[in-house]
Amino acid sequence: MALLEDLAWRHATKAYDPLKKVSSENIDKIIEAARLAPTSSGLQPFRIIVVENKELREKLVPGALNPECMRECSHLLVFAAWDQYTPERIDAMYDRTTDERGLPRGRFKSYTDSIKKLYAGQSPDQHFAHASKQSYIALGMAMAQAAELRINTTPAEGFDNQLVDDVLALHKLGLKSVTLLYVGYNDPARDWLAPMKKVRNPVDEFAF
Amino acid sequence: MALLEDLAWRHATKAYDPLKKVSSENIDKIIEAARLAPTSSGLQPFRIIVVENKELREKLVPGALNPECMRECSHLLVFAAWDQYTPERIDAMYDRTTDERGLPRGRFKSYTDSIKKLYAGQSPDQHFAHASKQSYIALGMAMAQAAELRINTTPAEGFDNQLVDDVLALHKLGLKSVTLLYVGYNDPARDWLAPMKKVRNPVDEFAF
Repeated sequence: MALLEDLAWRHATKAYDPLKKVSSENIDKIIEAARLAPTSSGLQPFRIIVVENKELREKLVPGALNPECMRECSHLLVFAAWDQYTPERIDAMYDRTTDERGLPRGRFKSYTDSIKKLYAGQSPDQHFAHASKQSYIALGMAMAQAAELRINTTPAEGFDNQLVDDVLALHKLGLKSVTLLYVGYNDPARDWLAPMKKVRNPVDEFAF
Repeated sequence: MALLEDLAWRHATKAYDPLKKVSSENIDKIIEAARLAPTSSGLQPFRIIVVENKELREKLVPGALNPECMRECSHLLVFAAWDQYTPERIDAMYDRTTDERGLPRGRFKSYTDSIKKLYAGQSPDQHFAHASKQSYIALGMAMAQAAELRINTTPAEGFDNQLVDDVLALHKLGLKSVTLLYVGYNDPARDWLAPMKKVRNPVDEFAF
């Protein structure tokens, strides 16, 4: 029941204690959970940018819907997805895969040819939308891992993507921001959601 | 380290043992993990359709990229998202939220007004894309919960969405299919991916 207990524990934290830092060991575990998340065709088409620096985060405050979280959380994780799928990116991942598995490069050529053909028929916007969806699985894993460690998080979609992309120069990496994840320890006195009941649709309305 | 061990254990299973069934108790746990997953504004804009019936699954085989998994897994979970956000759907979820928290209805009116306005400026396709992304978090939680129970899963995006929507009459529910999740116990003799090394980008290339 470990995961269910962790998920019941977590909530979207509304205020952080600015004096409490998450250890780098625990940040590494949160990132590792995201790294192990599955992705379509195993392409892992996203990255995480870890922003601890306060001055850098201050530059992102004007684009944040929750500026206090941006300022006061321990670490900001920016999930950023590939701006497009390219044959080179696909080949690079599959070369890594075959190399690490001790298989000849090209072992999965018929498969990679098929996904290259699929993506060639799509626009970069479609690529980014698809890559973004993969990153949501990893975002979830990061939140679940943090909850296992009883570390608070706040996922955020509502922010100025262009500002984040510009401040972090993500275009140079072929990435665009998707979501933010604030990580830290909450301030119970200001985290108004903490004591409230978690509300979901009843099981029989949710799954059938 | 529980989640990290579970994620290291899991892989996209390529073949299931058709004779091994997952207990309904364990299916309930997998669904519960998905149900507890966070969603944007707490709207939980998706549902899971559980398909155990073999005849019904046979109707989906022509639209499946992995027909053996469709036929031989224990349970098929179809993650299906809202076809659009509407003021009524938003109000229904927030009425439930305030009721369960013992708050007056309308307590979050300024917030719900803002999201209604946001979605009013978007197309149903944009709504569905956004709702779909939320379901990926839950898809991940379902896989993680299954892994904790050492139950195999296979997530699938590549399938004939229209066929699935038609066979399951999802439009009557205001839903459209997003992903499939095959659930069961693998057949080690045919599950070629099981013994292979899990390959991911190295930590220092994945997060920085």
